Amino acid sequence: MIRFGVAPTDHGAYIIAEGNAAQIGPGCQVRRISGVANDLLVFLGERHDLAPTREAPRLCTHQLQLTLADLVVEAHDTHHPIASSLYYEDQRREAKRRAADFLKNRLPKYLAYFERVLARNPRGPTHIIGGRLSYADLSLFQVVAGLQYAFPNTMARLARRYRHVMVVHARVAARPRIAAYLASERRLPFNQQGIFRHYPELDR
Amino acid sequence: MIRFGVAPTDHGAYIIAEGNAAQIGPGCQVRRISGVANDLLVFLGERHDLAPTREAPRLCTHQLQLTLADLVVEAHDTHHPIASSLYYEDQRREAKRRAADFLKNRLPKYLAYFERVLARNPRGPTHIIGGRLSYADLSLFQVVAGLQYAFPNTMARLARRYRHVMVVHARVAARPRIAAYLASERRLPFNQQGIFRHYPELDR
Repeated sequence: MIRFGVAPTDHGAYIIAEGNAAQIGPGCQVRRISGVANDLLVFLGERHDLAPTREAPRLCTHQLQLTLADLVVEAHDTHHPIASSLYYEDQRREAKRRAADFLKNRLPKYLAYFERVLARNPRGPTHIIGGRLSYADLSLFQVVAGLQYAFPNTMARLARRYRHVMVVHARVAARPRIAAYLASERRLPFNQQGIFRHYPELDR
Repeated sequence: MIRFGVAPTDHGAYIIAEGNAAQIGPGCQVRRISGVANDLLVFLGERHDLAPTREAPRLCTHQLQLTLADLVVEAHDTHHPIASSLYYEDQRREAKRRAADFLKNRLPKYLAYFERVLARNPRGPTHIIGGRLSYADLSLFQVVAGLQYAFPNTMARLARRYRHVMVVHARVAARPRIAAYLASERRLPFNQQGIFRHYPELDR
């Protein structure tokens, strides 16, 4: 059996997989590997019925996930545009410039893209792909939650323009078991050490 | 049939897939989609026998690809640390800071990781996974080629420390059909509009 847990690394949130080498594969010959989270979602999505089974929509789900991952990297780089090895305070001027561009150009572009994907879903705009929950819906929820923590003013303004995105966020949060998780101590609050950080001077 | 081509976008190098909607999947209901290159490599890797067939090493190959993609993003951001919508000249001071950190901390970390992956491959250090060529070897070749163009001084210094990586690069380049491609007009030269750019002031 391969067991999973999540651990922070300097690449962001990684998933730790434990299993024997034969299960993990010859290029990862260690008992404990840190796997790229987006890759392991392909694996977990199949195991836990959180991804379409047909190849084309399955690949499409992964593609949406990778685009969300790009957005996460850009959200992170608003507070660390120069180097993750430096303190925020040592790159604050650059962070202000980068955050301004992110909120003006990049974030609306990403949100408009996901809004369009939802609007065009022939099964309706309540899921990012197909007519059932997939891991990409869960990821979209988490990204929106992080952005709302980091940039509350901007997100409040943008919410009206990206209704479908906001509805997916709200519906995931309202799922009984997700709601129970969010209300529990297992849900770590957003903070100033993570990918999403709230620096008021970076929000408009 | 789904046909592929490569097109530059502001997300980097994307692959364009043409096919009918049923083939592409319900979340991508357009005749022409731009697919995230790393996702389509999963698809192409299977079709063209450039990926392991067993699940664990196949996921591992994709994971290595995603880590290479992270490296590519960081290489790009050395010349555009603030905004891809701004000219290099408008973020030159920030670029110098970011490039210095990239070359000192990040690049050696990535190269050391791939060197370790190659050294630990039980089938030998000539392939990144298993005993045969995979798309991750091709990607490693292309990333090293781009880095050598962008940062010739640094890469010349680092080459001695990451022998296995350099050998994979050289062996891919020497494959007869790759060599023919590289010598042809189909191989676009690296330039100052792409992801990898050579600004002498950013190289050490």
